[in-house]
Amino acid sequence: MKRRNFIKALGATTAVATLGSKRAQADAKKYKWKMVTSWPKNFPGLGVGAENLAKMINDLSGGRIKIKVFGANELVPPLGVFDFVSEGGAEIGHTGAYYWKGKHPACQFFSSVPFGLNAQEMNAWMYYGGGLELYEELYNQFNLVPRPAGNTGVQMGGWFNKEINTIEDLKGLTMRIPGLGGEVLQRAGGVPVTLAGAEIFTALQTGTIDATEWVGPYNDRAFGLYKAAKYYYYPGWHEPGPSLECIINKKAYLSLPSDLQNIIDISCKAVNIDMLSDYMSKNNLALDFLKKEDIKIKKFPDSVIKKLREISKEVMDEVGNHDDYTKKIYKSYYTFLKKVRPWTKISELAYLEGNN
Amino acid sequence: MKRRNFIKALGATTAVATLGSKRAQADAKKYKWKMVTSWPKNFPGLGVGAENLAKMINDLSGGRIKIKVFGANELVPPLGVFDFVSEGGAEIGHTGAYYWKGKHPACQFFSSVPFGLNAQEMNAWMYYGGGLELYEELYNQFNLVPRPAGNTGVQMGGWFNKEINTIEDLKGLTMRIPGLGGEVLQRAGGVPVTLAGAEIFTALQTGTIDATEWVGPYNDRAFGLYKAAKYYYYPGWHEPGPSLECIINKKAYLSLPSDLQNIIDISCKAVNIDMLSDYMSKNNLALDFLKKEDIKIKKFPDSVIKKLREISKEVMDEVGNHDDYTKKIYKSYYTFLKKVRPWTKISELAYLEGNN
Repeated sequence: MKRRNFIKALGATTAVATLGSKRAQADAKKYKWKMVTSWPKNFPGLGVGAENLAKMINDLSGGRIKIKVFGANELVPPLGVFDFVSEGGAEIGHTGAYYWKGKHPACQFFSSVPFGLNAQEMNAWMYYGGGLELYEELYNQFNLVPRPAGNTGVQMGGWFNKEINTIEDLKGLTMRIPGLGGEVLQRAGGVPVTLAGAEIFTALQTGTIDATEWVGPYNDRAFGLYKAAKYYYYPGWHEPGPSLECIINKKAYLSLPSDLQNIIDISCKAVNIDMLSDYMSKNNLALDFLKKEDIKIKKFPDSVIKKLREISKEVMDEVGNHDDYTKKIYKSYYTFLKKVRPWTKISELAYLEGNN
Repeated sequence: MKRRNFIKALGATTAVATLGSKRAQADAKKYKWKMVTSWPKNFPGLGVGAENLAKMINDLSGGRIKIKVFGANELVPPLGVFDFVSEGGAEIGHTGAYYWKGKHPACQFFSSVPFGLNAQEMNAWMYYGGGLELYEELYNQFNLVPRPAGNTGVQMGGWFNKEINTIEDLKGLTMRIPGLGGEVLQRAGGVPVTLAGAEIFTALQTGTIDATEWVGPYNDRAFGLYKAAKYYYYPGWHEPGPSLECIINKKAYLSLPSDLQNIIDISCKAVNIDMLSDYMSKNNLALDFLKKEDIKIKKFPDSVIKKLREISKEVMDEVGNHDDYTKKIYKSYYTFLKKVRPWTKISELAYLEGNN
């Protein structure tokens, strides 16, 4: 090669090198993130969902975002997740919005409320009914970007050592039931208590509590609750389709190129359907197991459900009117519920009724 | 700079250039794909779902895969999608597995069968009950990689110009109802006919047919079917949760780097929940509209549903025993249904029943 051509070729190579290395720089930029969660590491359903989310983001990004998942209490306690991500201690978290009513009462509408939307309706509200926009607006105040990222489906009513035949049977009943469900129980004359997961079994076995709710067959079986109770009641009127959440520190989210932001958003959508599918398939196996144990699986009497629904309405009206901002979310939620439920009834409900 | 150092620096730059351009080459490799679909371009729900899927894949890949979406009949007719993608005419397609019973009777289990799994149960079977593995095994014979990619939820029973009070009322009834639902109608004494979407309205209005099913309020309203019928019946026993599918030419799929394969897989999961949410939110608005029109929205009598369920069982037993391979899928599907339905009943069904 003549020197002149060599120099030209060299120039061309250098130009490619410059472009190539700029692109390589952008593509090679690696994000090492921490994910804090409210669940024990690899806890069935919830914790596995968090792991799946981290793995999806890693895989889709070709390793450009690497997320290390921390179980509850590894970096922060289960209820420290919101503040920690908000302050940037971790870039991302996996948790549930019902834990944050102390931050803002409106948070609860983005997980589950008594006699509220079921999972399918909740997703419709979030993605196509304006829910996600309100969720983003609320969490923006806390420096967070929220995404629905999992659902347990309708939970169970709980484990009881006393038969529930009328609403009177709830009077004086000591039950582990946190949040809005607990508020409803209290107004029905019961005594709601809050206990961490690990304390429930012993409290139920020793009679410190008469009843407890937890999640559903899959998680409840693992806790051995069937060994400490006589009755397993359904349905879980207080948590009809809890949405779990992924929260991302806003500054961390905005620092990402748009394809990586998209990867997080879409992974959250995928883990949303994935976790519900996991619960659906595992709950039925656990239910098979429980049916063989020395417990009675019973439906709450209609009259009890009716009364609990009335009290729930009172409670939710109060919560929803707490302040103007909550009122806006409350209004959106119930307007959607009123419109979507008639459709759910003539589709899902009518279909399932015809399958007895 | 001394010449010696200049050369050294040049060497370093060239080394970076080599690495950088290799990486740039890999990352810069662009895939221009065609997506053929069985839906009119941007058809509400189904067609929009296909567009959303293409956009997600484009966005997540940072533009490395660009997918051009073709509506039905733009490149191939609606029912030509399977063969066209199988043969590599297009790399990817969006359609429904119930169209391919002529390819293999087992295909139908991957969309919807009469009195089968609803959407939530279907996803549980696909992702956690072994369904997807069987789906992949079946489609592998056709050089295709299948992914669930959307769901309409429970469809409506259809539009009728005759009131249905007993199973006898189906005798002689001419109804547009394709596939397995049509087979069931025939055994109940009816006359199933197949008509393309565009022909339905006129056939119903002129009395060529007495009844037709289509999808649900959202799509049915757009077709103006309420102007040609007296009754709108629910529930859609014949299609309780049709899963739509994305099919990818196997060679095209395998030619992708693994992060792009992941991007397609996860985008399909996301569009699965997305489309169902879209239908949930739009069906209720359309239902509101239809309630104001001069039609009666009625539930099939229990006795009719019971009889249709019995006939459906006969039909499905025959389909399921067609050959050893179909038998394997049939067995997996119904084993899962038998296990999951008891859970659906004490969760979703019991919850919705308590909300009347």
